[in-house]
Amino acid sequence: MKTININLEKRSYPIYVGEGLLENYALVKENIPNKKVAIITNDKVAPLYLQKISNILATEKDIIPIILPDGEVFKNFESLNLIYDTLLKNKANRQVSLIALGGGVVGDITGFAAATFMRGVDFIQIPTTLLSQVDSSVGGKTGINHPLGKNMIGAFYQPRCVISDISLLETLPDKEFSAGLAEVIKYGLIRDASFFEWLEDNIKGIIKRDSQLLIEAVVRSCQNKADIVESDEFESGIRAILNLGHTFGHAIETATGYGKWLHGEAVATGMVMAAYLSEQMGWLKKEDNQRIKTLLIHANLPINPPEISLQEFLDLMQLDKKTKEDQINLVLQQGIGKAILTSDYDAKKFHNTLSKKTF
Amino acid sequence: MKTININLEKRSYPIYVGEGLLENYALVKENIPNKKVAIITNDKVAPLYLQKISNILATEKDIIPIILPDGEVFKNFESLNLIYDTLLKNKANRQVSLIALGGGVVGDITGFAAATFMRGVDFIQIPTTLLSQVDSSVGGKTGINHPLGKNMIGAFYQPRCVISDISLLETLPDKEFSAGLAEVIKYGLIRDASFFEWLEDNIKGIIKRDSQLLIEAVVRSCQNKADIVESDEFESGIRAILNLGHTFGHAIETATGYGKWLHGEAVATGMVMAAYLSEQMGWLKKEDNQRIKTLLIHANLPINPPEISLQEFLDLMQLDKKTKEDQINLVLQQGIGKAILTSDYDAKKFHNTLSKKTF
Repeated sequence: MKTININLEKRSYPIYVGEGLLENYALVKENIPNKKVAIITNDKVAPLYLQKISNILATEKDIIPIILPDGEVFKNFESLNLIYDTLLKNKANRQVSLIALGGGVVGDITGFAAATFMRGVDFIQIPTTLLSQVDSSVGGKTGINHPLGKNMIGAFYQPRCVISDISLLETLPDKEFSAGLAEVIKYGLIRDASFFEWLEDNIKGIIKRDSQLLIEAVVRSCQNKADIVESDEFESGIRAILNLGHTFGHAIETATGYGKWLHGEAVATGMVMAAYLSEQMGWLKKEDNQRIKTLLIHANLPINPPEISLQEFLDLMQLDKKTKEDQINLVLQQGIGKAILTSDYDAKKFHNTLSKKTF
Repeated sequence: MKTININLEKRSYPIYVGEGLLENYALVKENIPNKKVAIITNDKVAPLYLQKISNILATEKDIIPIILPDGEVFKNFESLNLIYDTLLKNKANRQVSLIALGGGVVGDITGFAAATFMRGVDFIQIPTTLLSQVDSSVGGKTGINHPLGKNMIGAFYQPRCVISDISLLETLPDKEFSAGLAEVIKYGLIRDASFFEWLEDNIKGIIKRDSQLLIEAVVRSCQNKADIVESDEFESGIRAILNLGHTFGHAIETATGYGKWLHGEAVATGMVMAAYLSEQMGWLKKEDNQRIKTLLIHANLPINPPEISLQEFLDLMQLDKKTKEDQINLVLQQGIGKAILTSDYDAKKFHNTLSKKTF
C-alpha cells in the first residue's frame, strides 16, 4: 500500500492506494471514528460492494445504507435530500461518519452532504472508478448540479481520508476504465513529461489492468493533482490547468447530450483539439502532437469530435462575443509536460481547430 | 464608528458598529469588491432599506434584488433555491457579492447561499435587528431549517465584513428589540460580570434606544462573542456556553409553536430557569439570581414559562431517558459572569425547576 499525503493545513488527509485494501479491516476501521456510519452508494455499486463493507463494520458500527439512483442526472437536490432525510430519520447527529462508496457523482454529492449536514461532519471516500480515484478524490470539490448548470451548488470540503482500492476497478466496464485513463494522461500532459513517457511505455499493461502498473498510475496521478491543489486549494489560479481538454470536452458533452460521451472520452478529444491548436500556434512540436494522439488511441479513447458545427461549438464554449477582450481562456500545451491558461491565441486557428473533423 | 476584528486566520473579518453607517458610502463601497451585487432581504425590510442601499450602489454596480418572504418558516430550501435561481438567471458567477440585509433568518440563509453558490462567493452582512447585530453576525454559522429540525443544513462560513448600523434599529418593534436584549444580557451572564453591571446601570437608557449606549452594548456583545468564537470556531468545546438559556428556551419555543414566543423571549425565561437551578445547586447566590430577574424585567422580557407540563418539558429537552448517563448537558451559572456546561446537577432539583410556574 502506498500513501499520498494531501497537505492542506488543518484539512490535510491521506490517500491510501493499493490492492485489496477493503480486506484490510484495520485500515478501514481506524479511519471511521464514529459509531454511526452512513454508507452512501448507488444502485450499480451497491450489489457489488455494499455488503462487503457493511460486513467489515457491522459488529462495531451502526450502519445506515443510502442507495442513490446511478447517474449524473441524479446528482441533484432530490438525492441530496434523500441523504439528509435518511440521516435525520436515523437520528444521526454531528457524530456521524459518511462513506462515499462509488464514482465521482457519489463522491461529490456525499462530500457536499458531509459539508452541510449540521454544518459539517466527518466523511471518507472509497472511489470505485478509475476516474474518481485519480480525479475527484483529490481536491475537496464537492457539489450537486442545478437545473441551470453543472456543479453550480457546492463547497470545498476535504475528506478524512481516501481509500483507493484498485481491486475495485476489476468490475469497471472497459469504456469507463478508458475514460478514467484520459485524466491520467492529462497529468502527464500538463506538468509531468516523465510520467507521460512512463505511460507511453506501459499503456498496454495498464489496459490489461496490471495491478502494479495501476497502483503506480493512480499514485502518480494523485501526487500530481495534490501538488496543484496544495498550491491553490480554492481554485484562484494555477488549478485551472487541470481543465486541459475540458472546455472543448464540455461542449462535446453538451452537444451530444449528457451520457452519450463519457466525460473522460470528451476530455480526451478535447485534449487532442487543444494539442492541435497548440501545434498550430507553434507551441507544440508536430511529433509531440502525434505522440499525444497515439497514447490516447492506445488507451482506447476517441480523438475525433462528433458532428458539431463551428457556430455551435463557439456558442457552447460561450464564445458568441468574438472581440479579442472576450476571447475565452483555454488551457493549451507548451510542449508535453507544460500547460498554460491563455486567451492569447489566434482566433482563426482556433476556429480552424473547431471546424476540423479528423485529427 | 467602532471596529471589532474577528480573528480567524484567513477567514478574519471586521464588524463596523456605529450610527448612520449606511450614509457612509465609502465604507459600503470599499467592502463590495465585485461589480455584480445581489441584495438579499425580506418583504418586511425591503420597503424600509432596500432602495436606500440600492441607491448608494446603483451607479457603479449591477444590483440583483432578491426579496424573500419574512419569517423563520421561510428559512428553507425554497428560499435558498430562489436565491440560486435568481443568481443563475442573472448570469452571476464566482465574482458576485451577496449582501444579507435583514435579521438572523436573512443572514443565515444568505450566508449559506454564499457558502455553497459555485463553492463559495463573497458576502457581507448588514443586520437590521438587535439580535442579529449581537448574535448571528459573529461566528459564521449559516444554514437553513429542514422539515425534521432547525438549522440541520448549513456551513461555517465567514462574511467579508459586517456593517452594524444601529440607526436601522429605529424601526424595530419594541418586542423584537427586547428579544435582542436577552442575548446582550447573556454575554454578561456567561463571561463578563462588569458588562452585566454596566447593563444594570444603563438599562433604562438602552430601552430608550440611546445611540451611544446602543453602540456600547453591541460592541461589547460582539467582542464577547468574538472571544469565544476565536477560541472555538467550529463549536467543539467552550462555544457551547453561548447556549445559556437555549435548551430551556427551545422547549418553550417548540411547545408554544414557533413565532408565539420570540427566540430572545424564550431564551430570557430559559436563563431565569437556569439561574434558579444554579441557585438550588448552591452555585449562584440568591441575591445574584434576583439581579438577573430584575435586569430581564427592566428589559421588558418574560421571566416565567408558559404552561408546559414537566413531562412535556423533559420530552422536548430530549430527556425521556432518565438515567444519570443520559442526563442532558445544560449551561448553568457559577456566579454572574461565569457559566459552565454540565450534566452534573441534581435531577430532582432540575425537575423542580421545570415544574415551577413563577420565578
